Amino acid sequence: MSPTRHDAPNPAVRRLSLYLRQLEALHERSVRTVSSRRLAETLALTDAQVRKDLAYFGQFGRPGVGYEVDPLIHRLRHILGTDTVSNTVLIGTGNLGRALAAYDGFVPKGFQLVACFDGDEKKVGKKVGPMTTQPMKELAATVTKLDVRLAILAVPAEAAQPVADALAKTTIRGILNFAPVRLKVPDTIGVRALDVAAELEQLSFLTRID
Amino acid sequence: MSPTRHDAPNPAVRRLSLYLRQLEALHERSVRTVSSRRLAETLALTDAQVRKDLAYFGQFGRPGVGYEVDPLIHRLRHILGTDTVSNTVLIGTGNLGRALAAYDGFVPKGFQLVACFDGDEKKVGKKVGPMTTQPMKELAATVTKLDVRLAILAVPAEAAQPVADALAKTTIRGILNFAPVRLKVPDTIGVRALDVAAELEQLSFLTRID
Repeated sequence: MSPTRHDAPNPAVRRLSLYLRQLEALHERSVRTVSSRRLAETLALTDAQVRKDLAYFGQFGRPGVGYEVDPLIHRLRHILGTDTVSNTVLIGTGNLGRALAAYDGFVPKGFQLVACFDGDEKKVGKKVGPMTTQPMKELAATVTKLDVRLAILAVPAEAAQPVADALAKTTIRGILNFAPVRLKVPDTIGVRALDVAAELEQLSFLTRID
Repeated sequence: MSPTRHDAPNPAVRRLSLYLRQLEALHERSVRTVSSRRLAETLALTDAQVRKDLAYFGQFGRPGVGYEVDPLIHRLRHILGTDTVSNTVLIGTGNLGRALAAYDGFVPKGFQLVACFDGDEKKVGKKVGPMTTQPMKELAATVTKLDVRLAILAVPAEAAQPVADALAKTTIRGILNFAPVRLKVPDTIGVRALDVAAELEQLSFLTRID
């Protein structure tokens, strides 16, 4: 049997994002087909790796022609699930949370912010773009009512695990965690982390003067 | 010879950020000492791993006492280089760039934004917090004048490599790259990447409904 997306290792799924970015850049330049070799070169991979990665998800390429750019973009977006929009809640409306609410990169990836919450009473009732900050006690009811599947966490480190525990009691299926802490969640919830503080520290380490 | 920080593998340096976060949380709760076992438990590591990681950077622990929280925080910040502040430029003042400029998490990690630039003439002259957006042609002179060592890239994918090439001709030593593209830079420049779009796609894949 051919390998399928269920066999795809995490790094292959990760590379789909890289392929998609390259294909989108080619689309911008009205390029219609691309070879595995060219995709590989721009990403410092081998063409065998590119063909193997994409083969997990279907037969896309044609010998002598390569990959058709636009159809492959649509297929990759479908595989990644970013061709549909999921209602998303933001938890934490401090400096980072408000910055994220103002960021226009979520909707194109299928994340539509529909409500925001904060554990700090002083923040409840405040406007964040078109949303009004709600208290945490309203989380479960709002998630159910708006059929929310994703949550973006932008709370301080010490608040992150209690919030994750509260989310685990709802129908939330995925968390994008900006809090600098590793969350413990049930297997039914996917977590991806963006630890800005850690990346800054690592960059600082790389560039420090001895 | 004992291993030194120059022998430390990347994952060990990466874990320093995790240890630091735990220690800062303990400091908040006025805890004065912590065992390697307790540090390990909260991070799902072994205590041997914790001791080995920290041993790359010096002898911190004492038998029967463990690690003293506050001195270890100071040592880790010094090792990471976040106990000093480096002048930093922001390149790209679109939605993400402006959100980053409003984020208050950079200064505590030693990154002081001192100037911002954009390749789009329409953005030049616009205020971003206390800064006024400058044209890219002023980059080299400003970097020299303000002794800038770090750059935060928040430009579109297609602009990222040309900007990195321009940075490579200055005294910049590190880049935090938010553009969804792998940068090619000389060995003398450190790069860390935060690919928000890719993380969103990965989360979308994890949580998609079949």
